[in-house]
Amino acid sequence: MKLNPPLPVSRVARLAGAKLSGDKTISVTGINEIHKVEKGDITFVDHPKYYERALKSAASVILINNEAECPEGKALLLVKDPFREYNRLARYFRPFMPADKHISASASIGEGTMLQPGVFIGNHVKIGSGCVIHSHAVLYDYTEIGDNVTIHANTVIGSDAFYFKRRERGYEKMHSCGRVIIGDNVEIGSCCTIDRGVSSDTIVGSGTKLDNQVHIGHDTVIGKNCLFAAQVGIAGVVTIEDDVILWGQVGVQKDLTIGKGAVVLGQSGIAKSLKGDTTYFGSPVREAREKMKELALIKQLPQLMQKLETEV
Amino acid sequence: MKLNPPLPVSRVARLAGAKLSGDKTISVTGINEIHKVEKGDITFVDHPKYYERALKSAASVILINNEAECPEGKALLLVKDPFREYNRLARYFRPFMPADKHISASASIGEGTMLQPGVFIGNHVKIGSGCVIHSHAVLYDYTEIGDNVTIHANTVIGSDAFYFKRRERGYEKMHSCGRVIIGDNVEIGSCCTIDRGVSSDTIVGSGTKLDNQVHIGHDTVIGKNCLFAAQVGIAGVVTIEDDVILWGQVGVQKDLTIGKGAVVLGQSGIAKSLKGDTTYFGSPVREAREKMKELALIKQLPQLMQKLETEV
Amino acid sequence: MKLNPPLPVSRVARLAGAKLSGDKTISVTGINEIHKVEKGDITFVDHPKYYERALKSAASVILINNEAECPEGKALLLVKDPFREYNRLARYFRPFMPADKHISASASIGEGTMLQPGVFIGNHVKIGSGCVIHSHAVLYDYTEIGDNVTIHANTVIGSDAFYFKRRERGYEKMHSCGRVIIGDNVEIGSCCTIDRGVSSDTIVGSGTKLDNQVHIGHDTVIGKNCLFAAQVGIAGVVTIEDDVILWGQVGVQKDLTIGKGAVVLGQSGIAKSLKGDTTYFGSPVREAREKMKELALIKQLPQLMQKLETEV
Repeated sequence: MKLNPPLPVSRVARLAGAKLSGDKTISVTGINEIHKVEKGDITFVDHPKYYERALKSAASVILINNEAECPEGKALLLVKDPFREYNRLARYFRPFMPADKHISASASIGEGTMLQPGVFIGNHVKIGSGCVIHSHAVLYDYTEIGDNVTIHANTVIGSDAFYFKRRERGYEKMHSCGRVIIGDNVEIGSCCTIDRGVSSDTIVGSGTKLDNQVHIGHDTVIGKNCLFAAQVGIAGVVTIEDDVILWGQVGVQKDLTIGKGAVVLGQSGIAKSLKGDTTYFGSPVREAREKMKELALIKQLPQLMQKLETEV
Repeated sequence: MKLNPPLPVSRVARLAGAKLSGDKTISVTGINEIHKVEKGDITFVDHPKYYERALKSAASVILINNEAECPEGKALLLVKDPFREYNRLARYFRPFMPADKHISASASIGEGTMLQPGVFIGNHVKIGSGCVIHSHAVLYDYTEIGDNVTIHANTVIGSDAFYFKRRERGYEKMHSCGRVIIGDNVEIGSCCTIDRGVSSDTIVGSGTKLDNQVHIGHDTVIGKNCLFAAQVGIAGVVTIEDDVILWGQVGVQKDLTIGKGAVVLGQSGIAKSLKGDTTYFGSPVREAREKMKELALIKQLPQLMQKLETEV
Repeated sequence: MKLNPPLPVSRVARLAGAKLSGDKTISVTGINEIHKVEKGDITFVDHPKYYERALKSAASVILINNEAECPEGKALLLVKDPFREYNRLARYFRPFMPADKHISASASIGEGTMLQPGVFIGNHVKIGSGCVIHSHAVLYDYTEIGDNVTIHANTVIGSDAFYFKRRERGYEKMHSCGRVIIGDNVEIGSCCTIDRGVSSDTIVGSGTKLDNQVHIGHDTVIGKNCLFAAQVGIAGVVTIEDDVILWGQVGVQKDLTIGKGAVVLGQSGIAKSLKGDTTYFGSPVREAREKMKELALIKQLPQLMQKLETEV
């Protein structure tokens, strides 16, 4: 998320109870988890294995749990538990604000947009013009919706990222401070769930259409004019380029990319990146024609076995 | 959908800005997408490949984008963009009517039916007697529910069909004017979604039981006394006959039939029609015993490979 | 479920219109379906095949449809239709109570717990302190939630068990009288569904985290610090021990156990019990490394076929 206005790094160091080293004049403009960092951001690292990655990332300020050499133009914030202090800052910058009614006074709703009874619109939500939001859809704080978007009943947009750190005594949740951004002319079915970014934005591109019960994880970025059939599930930090079609019940693992124009047949499971303009099938997924050939061969196994027994 | 009262075809031609040819005395009694047309209906066709199918269909009036010979007893409506004009007519006949409260004044609700807090009942909805509708269930306009039906919380009945036409610049939605019709003694779990027909009706037969998070697509027709376990997903324009059992997470593709008494085991994927009274498994689905044999053979592959290497 | 106060068995016999034999001094302390019976419980049996199991179970009182020898310290209730009489008793002990507002006056809600607009809290629900319940979540009657629990929007907790008896003329529903019990520090995503026990309790252990659109069936018991990704579906009467991780879209069949620390990869299907501390994959599921080897072998099938044709 972006800070508005930016904060001096010395102020952030005090908020985090951290020892500040490096460039003490930095102006902090955002906070982001390592997968999504940009210049001006605070991020955190708590395991020596990832120190180099964090120090070399675009982040300007790094919460870290050991002394380290500070790269030129960056600042380090030395703390005992970087995850905890990062979380504390995220909560400080974007605290949970309970609502006292269904439509927040701080929401902005465009001309001609219709809200059916029982819709919940959180704080600082922005909705464009010409939209229809059906009954009991829930838009968490800071969600942004373009023009001419239809959201069907009981869909939830902007619930927290499923992002936990394993501690000895159980899981500790990372506080979500990102948003969901929906483009123009998007249609979202009933009972869909789109999680907010843990620190960045979950994005659904203009013209994309989601059927019912589709799930989209945190910080996932979906292109334009995609088509996802019912019960598709997409994990966090996925990139789906334009014009991708996912048929029913397809599952997509985190941290991968599906190329422009790819088509994935029903119930497929995607665990690594796929190039575009190709049709895929299977769990784990393969190029569809190869998978079909394989299935045909498997059907010949009984004959093959018999052949082996009689001829070998 | 049916028109009540019927309209003279000349009136429809004026509404569509169409050139009328053929039988100009036809009384139009309905509007339907080509998969579901009946006598008296308007339908549309916009690609020469499908002209013959449309002209030979049961439809009485065809929106078409080229001059064609009009079959006896039918009328043609020549327009530049049949899909757009069809859509315009569908919206004209069944416009979206925003609701101003949770229970529409035009809904009829039978004796002894209980609505829990927050239920949304759209315009012209009909609910029989002895039903229980749990919190925040949403029944879109024109939905019809029989007697002694239980609908659990946050289920959505009658949201729009997932039906889009690909245009050069993105997808154009077909306006849904069909309904959902639920029989008697049906139980529907929580967070289910049942889409309305795009032009005809989505039907759930009497005595059928759906577990939670089941999805049923537009214009699908389900028989009596079926049992669908949680997270089953059924596409549009499917026919499922009586007494079919689908176990958890089964997926069913569009435009196919599952015969009476078929049983489909969990996570199976159905891409073609299945005959009844048989048990199936797998994705793609096969007769369950065959699939089990195949799985057993696959487990023998390592030995087979070894045998080949040593003996051949 | 437990009866408070207990009832003399003679009173229960009159309620069920049953002929009482055996120990007529028993005090009935609960009612339970056969999978979950404890001492003091009423249960039922209606098929000779299961008589012995019921008579030897922990139940103190058995509704039965034939004369049978009554074991020491138990009582038999002879009725024509044990399922029907059991159901009648369950409904008598725990009738459906319609709500007249979103938050029941009989619910207890702990300090610092925040309810967002539109949350439904049924009768006799108990919620601990420090919880956040998001918009339109639905908690059916008797649900119990621990401390510091987050429940996201449109999730449903406590809807009826999917449990039906096939009769000649259709399915007859077993009336659910069990509860859902959620421990401390649990996080539940959006549009999840957790069914109440049919007679016992569905339990989610402390520290467990559920992503969006997770389904958990009736009487299932989940341990501590488990992690279930989006769209996981778990049937009824399952036991999942502590520290189990199920990735997205995993399906779990009824009546089985998953051992402590097991990890199940995405889209796997589990049809029999799994031992702990092992990673699994596939549908049907196998130990993950074995499954991966098998997939690699299958990829070699084309070569194998060729080899056979040329060399044999």
